[in-house]
Amino acid sequence: MDLKIPTLLIDKTKCQANIDQMLEKASRSKAEVRPHFKTHFSADIAELYRSSGVTKCTVSSVSMATYFAEHGWNDITIAFPYNPLEAREIDALAEKIKLNILIVSEDSLKHAQASIKNHLGYFLKIDIGTHRTGINPENTKLIKSLIDQSSEQLTYRGFLAHAGHTYGARDLDSIQEIFNESTKMLTDLQNEFGGLISYGDTPSCSLMEDLSFCDEIRAGNFVFYDWMQRQIGSCDTEQIAVCLAAPVVAIHEDRHEIVVYGGGVHLSKDMIIEKDADGKDQRCFGKMVALTSGGWSTEILGSVVRLSQEHGIIKLPIRELSRMKVGDVIGILPVHSCLAADLQGYYVSTEGERVEKMIKN
Amino acid sequence: MDLKIPTLLIDKTKCQANIDQMLEKASRSKAEVRPHFKTHFSADIAELYRSSGVTKCTVSSVSMATYFAEHGWNDITIAFPYNPLEAREIDALAEKIKLNILIVSEDSLKHAQASIKNHLGYFLKIDIGTHRTGINPENTKLIKSLIDQSSEQLTYRGFLAHAGHTYGARDLDSIQEIFNESTKMLTDLQNEFGGLISYGDTPSCSLMEDLSFCDEIRAGNFVFYDWMQRQIGSCDTEQIAVCLAAPVVAIHEDRHEIVVYGGGVHLSKDMIIEKDADGKDQRCFGKMVALTSGGWSTEILGSVVRLSQEHGIIKLPIRELSRMKVGDVIGILPVHSCLAADLQGYYVSTEGERVEKMIKN
Repeated sequence: MDLKIPTLLIDKTKCQANIDQMLEKASRSKAEVRPHFKTHFSADIAELYRSSGVTKCTVSSVSMATYFAEHGWNDITIAFPYNPLEAREIDALAEKIKLNILIVSEDSLKHAQASIKNHLGYFLKIDIGTHRTGINPENTKLIKSLIDQSSEQLTYRGFLAHAGHTYGARDLDSIQEIFNESTKMLTDLQNEFGGLISYGDTPSCSLMEDLSFCDEIRAGNFVFYDWMQRQIGSCDTEQIAVCLAAPVVAIHEDRHEIVVYGGGVHLSKDMIIEKDADGKDQRCFGKMVALTSGGWSTEILGSVVRLSQEHGIIKLPIRELSRMKVGDVIGILPVHSCLAADLQGYYVSTEGERVEKMIKN
Repeated sequence: MDLKIPTLLIDKTKCQANIDQMLEKASRSKAEVRPHFKTHFSADIAELYRSSGVTKCTVSSVSMATYFAEHGWNDITIAFPYNPLEAREIDALAEKIKLNILIVSEDSLKHAQASIKNHLGYFLKIDIGTHRTGINPENTKLIKSLIDQSSEQLTYRGFLAHAGHTYGARDLDSIQEIFNESTKMLTDLQNEFGGLISYGDTPSCSLMEDLSFCDEIRAGNFVFYDWMQRQIGSCDTEQIAVCLAAPVVAIHEDRHEIVVYGGGVHLSKDMIIEKDADGKDQRCFGKMVALTSGGWSTEILGSVVRLSQEHGIIKLPIRELSRMKVGDVIGILPVHSCLAADLQGYYVSTEGERVEKMIKN
């Protein structure tokens, strides 16, 4: 591969294995899979799902729904609170495909009722503890009112929840606890009001063996995984399916650091805190690995400790540093693959092929 | 303006005033201006500079240099360490325009000597304390060697430095101290070896009145400014020339928060730490303002306290919250305008016109 500039490499074999593992768990749990495509933004990656029999997907914006509809996806949930200002675009899309939106308030539902002419499904977004958005599960009066307004034109589908607070967990017990609470909240609601349960965060969907409480698994990150998921424990390093190829442009032996072309505009500024060799808190924006002819090796050689717009600063042991030279290309496992993916114009597969994605224009 | 989705608004009048203020200071200091275009990525914004007489610019990548060369900029410095893997692209560009590169090591210079056929200038990148990259100013042996290799084909231009550590400062005294140290280091080098001094970080270029020690001012962020610069003290709120328009999609009165369509893929995850009303550390990803018919008002109404991929969570006083409704569009002054700008497919001016920018494809 002729990699001259920061390029996000995709190992499709790993993606496929990650997909198959989740599908197998879904099958055992008798749950459908409606994967979130906000991780990859790519019709090419979506084809991997399609070849495994997946026919439904989740997106986080109307523009993303439009992109995937143009690529043959005709059953899509927009898992982001209904934006009244895009009613016309939603209506146009609902004319063409089977579409679900997300309702978080009486106002939103009223607006959708008045504005959308084509048939549309709606999920109620339930806040199961992340406190990003959603309806308090104890507010059964509001929940009942919103379900009672279901009609043939705007049809109630069920409860949708994202246990995003698992991202703050770093051990199986904490994730198990969040999962148990979420399961109880959502099952209680389903028992009382009916409808589907759509559930999905990559940590609990990866780590919990039995997902049979839900009807639909909506996780997305697992197709790529990343160093944050590795730190949470959702995956092994071997399962991470994306890696930023980054050229080495400077070597600073005195401080055990190299500088690569690969910065905040390639990896995003998302980061995690790790302990360094002295037990001190250290920011980590990605992990350095070696590139190989068919992809990358999984031995971690160093950490991206600082990022500016185009520069990445990698700290690594002197043993590794002494092997490096300007003009080498190294790999970086991103901390957050979804945001790194968003920043690319395209990807390159480990077979050297260009992988197309949605771009902003 | 018909704003339905997150859109970065540009107030060109404010941009022009920010440009003129810097040009006026440069003129007083008898320094040239070679502004960094990595802040705006936009041929349209570059025209504002051109109309004020600026003819040279700085970029941070070869692809950015190519974009601006295509838009008529024919004197460009790539202020990023020379990437040997892009030698061919650099050479092709050097055939067309007056181009300068950045050298940080003997290896880089040797590679450029062997690979570049067209005439090219080079600056030596000096590390004046940021410790991102650059040559230690005390390493005069290396500096002398790199300058001695100047030739008619690959010509030494001078010293280039970025006092990025001013971004960690929060008072004028600290910035003054960094500036004084930087000035001394660079002036000493210039006295010994000759060549230009190219200097530029927005905090010191904004706050120091006399920049006459340098030959060339290379700052870039000042054209837009942002909330980080406001916190540092480089600008007033009124000078911030960009604002993300973001639709309100949910209101959570119980926790004094609203949710907007506008997240990490629109603002970036760059953030600063501020004190909240109780004196506790609070992450801030942007500041909420009200949009007006001609732009936005500068009264700060709330803070973006959390961001996920598409969601922004804004904390605001109950007085403000009670006025908000789903479907409103609010404004967010970004924490870091360069990274927010990178994330857009285009901008919209406060006059409602589309502002083109470089896109990744």
